[in-house]
Amino acid sequence: MNLKSFFRVVFLKRNELTIKIKNIVGFYPNDVFLFEKALIHKSAVYDHSSDYSESNERLEFLGDAILGAVVADYLFKEYPKKDEGFLTKMRSKIVSRHSLNELAKKIGLDKVVIAKLDKKSKTDSIYGNAFEALIGAIYLDKGSKSCEKFILERIIYPHISLDKLENEETNFKSLIIEWAQKEKRELVFEIISELGEGRNKIFEACVKLDGEEISRGREKSKKKAEQIAANQFCKKFKLLDE
Amino acid sequence: MNLKSFFRVVFLKRNELTIKIKNIVGFYPNDVFLFEKALIHKSAVYDHSSDYSESNERLEFLGDAILGAVVADYLFKEYPKKDEGFLTKMRSKIVSRHSLNELAKKIGLDKVVIAKLDKKSKTDSIYGNAFEALIGAIYLDKGSKSCEKFILERIIYPHISLDKLENEETNFKSLIIEWAQKEKRELVFEIISELGEGRNKIFEACVKLDGEEISRGREKSKKKAEQIAANQFCKKFKLLDE
Repeated sequence: MNLKSFFRVVFLKRNELTIKIKNIVGFYPNDVFLFEKALIHKSAVYDHSSDYSESNERLEFLGDAILGAVVADYLFKEYPKKDEGFLTKMRSKIVSRHSLNELAKKIGLDKVVIAKLDKKSKTDSIYGNAFEALIGAIYLDKGSKSCEKFILERIIYPHISLDKLENEETNFKSLIIEWAQKEKRELVFEIISELGEGRNKIFEACVKLDGEEISRGREKSKKKAEQIAANQFCKKFKLLDE
Repeated sequence: MNLKSFFRVVFLKRNELTIKIKNIVGFYPNDVFLFEKALIHKSAVYDHSSDYSESNERLEFLGDAILGAVVADYLFKEYPKKDEGFLTKMRSKIVSRHSLNELAKKIGLDKVVIAKLDKKSKTDSIYGNAFEALIGAIYLDKGSKSCEKFILERIIYPHISLDKLENEETNFKSLIIEWAQKEKRELVFEIISELGEGRNKIFEACVKLDGEEISRGREKSKKKAEQIAANQFCKKFKLLDE
């Protein structure tokens, strides 16, 4: 490739990326390669033939903190009469792994994330992580005010319904399944006993982590018993405090 | 009290407070009562004869998030070559309960916190919490830029040595003791066995939470065995991820 065609390729790539980013974030980036970095899952870096030298993990660290602050500020002002327990719970729901993965897909990040994973190892959390990294990139590229504006106007207002969230019971089971996936630990739910008969039947569920029993729960349905066991699990591992 | 003396008392109180706050934060607050709220531990609200209707817990929620974001941004820029694992660890050290308590005392918050606690129930964490609430108050009173400036110029630059922190081994034992205090749970360290003789002696330590064994550690000294057991404890309870 001569120098002219090299620059043409770089220019075209830059252009194409710029448009992709514009479609997602709603503005033209100053430094498009910063946004590209936000899309790079570490699997695409470790690959030997990779074009990429750095993954999005540093940006994710930054974006996670910025998002946490913007959401805290938003909730603090939205709910002037609610206590910090309520605020913490609401924030956990908004920035939970599951919620971030969904938000990422809603803005189309799943179509542009760069990863080299087989189908089996690909989980939705690579989208949620890229979403946090994207916030880090916006913060660095456009400053804190614009980043806050992006989070509020393009994410929270259109995609988050506070009323719905307020009434949403936390699904403890899916919460700990997600956590275990992220931590690469083996999580098993088991119904270990059934007591009583007919209408009075009580189920006992337990949760095991890497083969070790962590918590139990008893209720009239298997599903509820599992939720109680999962809730106990969350308390033990402090998963509800974010 | 007639109206004139009532206003004189309010005015004097306001004045006195304003000067106290100015001495701590370095500027005159716009809304001094917002700063007063940052100083109010919940024990001073629950008291029936209390003058205060709201504690600092909501402001603490906000300040915690703002501090996390400012510290993340600071570390991200200070360490352009370090990975997110390093950044996360450094941030944990800066915003650990212990570190915040110390910072609070360094800027004199311990002298102005309003609490109604007997000596036994008073722990240093009320100062760390008030410190976070103070950051929330600054953020609301002066805006995000001024708040960032306060955190960097009055807290991090003068009081945090990154070099020292980098080399500081995490003291897992004191970390989990602090955590248990905060969570009001009973934590016990025990040396459960000594194997071998003389130079080859190995100690085994275990950590119990509310009477239940959580983790063990083996090493050549009691102190090191406890550190290993405490480190395992931290991993199990995810205490190192903040």
